[in-house]
Amino acid sequence: MTRLELVEQIKQKQSFLCIGLDVDLTKIPTHLLELEDPIFEFNKQIIDATHQLAVAYKPNTAFYEAYGLKGWKSLEKTIDYLNENYPEIFTIADAKRGDIGNTSTMYAKAFFEDLDFDSVTVAPYMGSDSVEPFLAFNNKFTIMLALTSNKGGLDFQGLETEKDTLYKEVLKTSLTWKNNEQLMFVVGATKAEYFKGIRDIVPNHFLLVPGVGAQGGNLHDVCKYGLNDDVGLLINSSRGIIYAGNDENFATTAKEKALELQQEMKEILESK
Amino acid sequence: MTRLELVEQIKQKQSFLCIGLDVDLTKIPTHLLELEDPIFEFNKQIIDATHQLAVAYKPNTAFYEAYGLKGWKSLEKTIDYLNENYPEIFTIADAKRGDIGNTSTMYAKAFFEDLDFDSVTVAPYMGSDSVEPFLAFNNKFTIMLALTSNKGGLDFQGLETEKDTLYKEVLKTSLTWKNNEQLMFVVGATKAEYFKGIRDIVPNHFLLVPGVGAQGGNLHDVCKYGLNDDVGLLINSSRGIIYAGNDENFATTAKEKALELQQEMKEILESK
Repeated sequence: MTRLELVEQIKQKQSFLCIGLDVDLTKIPTHLLELEDPIFEFNKQIIDATHQLAVAYKPNTAFYEAYGLKGWKSLEKTIDYLNENYPEIFTIADAKRGDIGNTSTMYAKAFFEDLDFDSVTVAPYMGSDSVEPFLAFNNKFTIMLALTSNKGGLDFQGLETEKDTLYKEVLKTSLTWKNNEQLMFVVGATKAEYFKGIRDIVPNHFLLVPGVGAQGGNLHDVCKYGLNDDVGLLINSSRGIIYAGNDENFATTAKEKALELQQEMKEILESK
Repeated sequence: MTRLELVEQIKQKQSFLCIGLDVDLTKIPTHLLELEDPIFEFNKQIIDATHQLAVAYKPNTAFYEAYGLKGWKSLEKTIDYLNENYPEIFTIADAKRGDIGNTSTMYAKAFFEDLDFDSVTVAPYMGSDSVEPFLAFNNKFTIMLALTSNKGGLDFQGLETEKDTLYKEVLKTSLTWKNNEQLMFVVGATKAEYFKGIRDIVPNHFLLVPGVGAQGGNLHDVCKYGLNDDVGLLINSSRGIIYAGNDENFATTAKEKALELQQEMKEILESK
């Protein structure tokens, strides 16, 4: 998918909502557990109910790997289902990978070729040659961790370095890498006050923003500083949408929650 | 596995060699490609030929994920084969994972419970609560990236922070975490001169050292500063051993290369 196609989808749907497909068998409606592939069935129903309100879906690979081969199969079926039925949707493998060059290339092949995701999340700790192999794939996006929303996020990301605060230095350095226009960045919503400084460094790149809802972030605060001319934000909600209901109508309940967020986004875009 | 069992294995075998099982279908002997599961067959023959010379095996998950479901199946068969036939061997899932708390727990379950590895490599960028969930598993080890041997390793790891060089600060901070005695650290061999400073911070922990051989690191330089009373080093070699031969005798050739390294290690241990 190209950046232009993503932006057009956002404008058409008046939404920059990403739905996180973090499927935990202990949290999904129990009637699904009788089916052959409860994880895929759960995802399919969530996707069918919400695809007009969301522009992106983000399965976190941990939740699939935890179920071994069966989980990996569910992940494969989920991305195939998205690509076949809703090719306009931007897909994110939330995998937080990163390794030395030839190994990062193997990860890139896994997610961009074998599974055919539009994007994958990566960790920056190993530096340039751990991320650039992902950027070598045309029309695929690499979403690098910058500032995360978890409690320990600032343990290292918040350290002042000889150049700048570490997460800012990570952002700045990545702009020197080859094909950096195919980068996006993860920036946690619980730190909305940091968005201004981040936009000073990366005014044009898309930011993937987890932490709205369950983790306490506020949509309006994030948009105030985070929006750019192409919208430039993908706001992720996982648990707040997919586990909103826990009975046979869970997909309808999820749709209602997604609609609430999409309506809020529509208002924000209209008032820009 | 306990630390004591690992140390006893090292002393018994007079080896602290770890063999990296980074299997690339384009590099293995072509006669294996006719078999149903060439990756597993390759691993099985390498393991059978070298298990008396190595104390640990380290499949890098990227090389398995790149082949999708089939690759994951090969990984599962490899770890099952190791656990069933050579339970004394220390097994490392080189996965470089790390995410927010509940997600890291899912990764830990994937590698420690579902696949039953003894250890997994993790990345530190997301801080304490991205690593501590791994440390909550008894008799399992969490091998955190500290200083990596790749070209871009120092891009961020080498930054001077308000406290110390980033990789040193990562080491120091991790010693404050719960169950930190179950930590090990990845330290690249190409930076042997850094081992002294690292041992000042973590005198007792095991260090997993990639980069000897193909990446240019020198075993004696590493041992000079890296060895501690319990040996405390696992030296990894991947390509230098597993791809030493490329015909029907590849496993024998791999054994010869492993033996060279083991003999060098034995001499080093005897001269301590």
